[in-house]
Amino acid sequence: MRRALDLAQLGAGWTRPNPLVGAVVVKDGQVIAEGHHAVCGGPHAEAVALLEAGARARGGDLYLNLEPCVAFPGKKTPPCVDAILQAGIKRVIVATADPNPHVSGRGLVRLREAGVAVVEGVLADEAQRLNEVFFHWIRTRTPFVVLKLALSLDGKIATRTGRSRWITGPESRRRVHLLRARYGAILVGVGTVLVDDPSLTVREVEGPQPLRVILDREGRTPLAAKVLSGEARTVIATGDRMPAETEAELRARGAEVWRLPGEGDRVDLGALLRRLGGETDSLLVEGGSEVAGSFLSAGLVHKIAFFYAPVILGGRDAVPAVGGDGVADPAEAIRVRDLSIERVGEDFLITGYPTREA
Amino acid sequence: MRRALDLAQLGAGWTRPNPLVGAVVVKDGQVIAEGHHAVCGGPHAEAVALLEAGARARGGDLYLNLEPCVAFPGKKTPPCVDAILQAGIKRVIVATADPNPHVSGRGLVRLREAGVAVVEGVLADEAQRLNEVFFHWIRTRTPFVVLKLALSLDGKIATRTGRSRWITGPESRRRVHLLRARYGAILVGVGTVLVDDPSLTVREVEGPQPLRVILDREGRTPLAAKVLSGEARTVIATGDRMPAETEAELRARGAEVWRLPGEGDRVDLGALLRRLGGETDSLLVEGGSEVAGSFLSAGLVHKIAFFYAPVILGGRDAVPAVGGDGVADPAEAIRVRDLSIERVGEDFLITGYPTREA
Repeated sequence: MRRALDLAQLGAGWTRPNPLVGAVVVKDGQVIAEGHHAVCGGPHAEAVALLEAGARARGGDLYLNLEPCVAFPGKKTPPCVDAILQAGIKRVIVATADPNPHVSGRGLVRLREAGVAVVEGVLADEAQRLNEVFFHWIRTRTPFVVLKLALSLDGKIATRTGRSRWITGPESRRRVHLLRARYGAILVGVGTVLVDDPSLTVREVEGPQPLRVILDREGRTPLAAKVLSGEARTVIATGDRMPAETEAELRARGAEVWRLPGEGDRVDLGALLRRLGGETDSLLVEGGSEVAGSFLSAGLVHKIAFFYAPVILGGRDAVPAVGGDGVADPAEAIRVRDLSIERVGEDFLITGYPTREA
Repeated sequence: MRRALDLAQLGAGWTRPNPLVGAVVVKDGQVIAEGHHAVCGGPHAEAVALLEAGARARGGDLYLNLEPCVAFPGKKTPPCVDAILQAGIKRVIVATADPNPHVSGRGLVRLREAGVAVVEGVLADEAQRLNEVFFHWIRTRTPFVVLKLALSLDGKIATRTGRSRWITGPESRRRVHLLRARYGAILVGVGTVLVDDPSLTVREVEGPQPLRVILDREGRTPLAAKVLSGEARTVIATGDRMPAETEAELRARGAEVWRLPGEGDRVDLGALLRRLGGETDSLLVEGGSEVAGSFLSAGLVHKIAFFYAPVILGGRDAVPAVGGDGVADPAEAIRVRDLSIERVGEDFLITGYPTREA
């Protein structure tokens, strides 16, 4: 199963909105074939592994990190359950059921009904984490949101003069490019565009270019901004305040403009995520401070990735990592569960899952 | 030598201003005696170990994390070099020389002149860290300054309403009491006294009570404050603005009042440290935000101990871990060297050594 999880990981960034799946065929204690789902629209992991195994698969075990699929309307690939039965597999070991409402246990039921032994729950937690994006999206049809920040030990993302380049080191920046390739869209506030003029593209690693989203209620994105450079799709998420003329200019530069309902002074983030969910399964929010505060206080961040540099910036007027109103009492703080700490060059990376539950 | 370092650690908090020293006597590959310096004024580690070894020490090896002492004016204990020679030790292995200008290599020279083999530099880095307080104080006669903060992942030490209890968990708070017992003095700004009314005593662990120091230029420390409760010595560090009447009231409550030169609006921290260096070898600065900023920007913090809780407080108006003016450009940031990360309950602790060098 460990091997199936490793294989599944190979598709990271490319299978969206499909899950990551790895398959290993074992017979007489030997691995005789393996496969993974490499790209959306391509063959499933099971199909790849069973094709490689051929007639040798008969009587063998199949390890999968996710329940195999059954036929349902609109499906592009032949159902894997049929392929497994045809191949004569005698036992299927899966890490988790498929939360896709079209599958959701029916694949396992069909296997059992056909006389195949089914073992469920092996390395289930790892498998759940591996497909956390898919599991979230398939249930909610909104993107899995990851908040990424690069901050000093004292929690600043920029100095009092607004400068943020560079707080973290080159290894962390490379990791950010891996994240951008991993997730389907990137979002920043227009403030970040005005101060940093980022490209928001994947450069330092191989990977698909994510959709770029700029939160810009007033239409302040400069027409010369790098996010309008055309290397990737760009959406300007705005409300009703942006002048029609600005919208036309942005469209002429190749950007899409989404007029979304407002929420007081801001774009309604829930509405934005519902629309984004029709485009992609995941969103990397890269700041700034107020955007981070808005997403967090709305309970819309599913995972954090905070890169801390071994520096202290200081300054009562420096830019805090998370702005907004914040909480009044530490007891109301957003708790981050399953925190993990990893060294990245001279920096360190904290990941975890924010939750409101006490 | 590892054992000598472990033995030395047993005196932590009690030997001040003496260094931590452990001694192990080895003969024919066997440990035959060991000792440590347990308390200032008590016998040195070498004396304890050699007394235990008795006549068996003759021809043996002696492991020490610090160079043994020689006689100098004002010294309370008999010089260890003489005891080593009398015991007939044939080889001395030391981690580091003693930076005390009265010793500073002379102990090793005397041993060599008397025909004892000397090996220097074994586990020198660990030995240096173990006695970092002593090494700093003996050279500068000012305290080794440790900045301790309890902060959220987003670098806040209190919410927008000023509340900070509790950000970190019980294990971290216990560790803070260990730090208080380890260092000779604790300092907070009067702002912290007004908001949190801390006792600044060692409660959750066994250990000596540190000197409590309140930075209070105006004399705003309430007479009912817990720091004036008499369980430990308290110094109010102030300038010339505190009214004589306030000083008299504070003195009547048992506090000492130190009038120090000012530096613009603030007490001159260099002057404070010079005076404190006559009292103790180390100072734990516990905040708040502006005090942390003042010490850091003056280059007066030798070590940081930041306890991060797995929570996000948020808030553009929440209290940042480090206030003051801060730096204008990330390139001017204070870098923290030799960063180490440790889990403490659900929190994690970052320690390291701030430096201005690029």
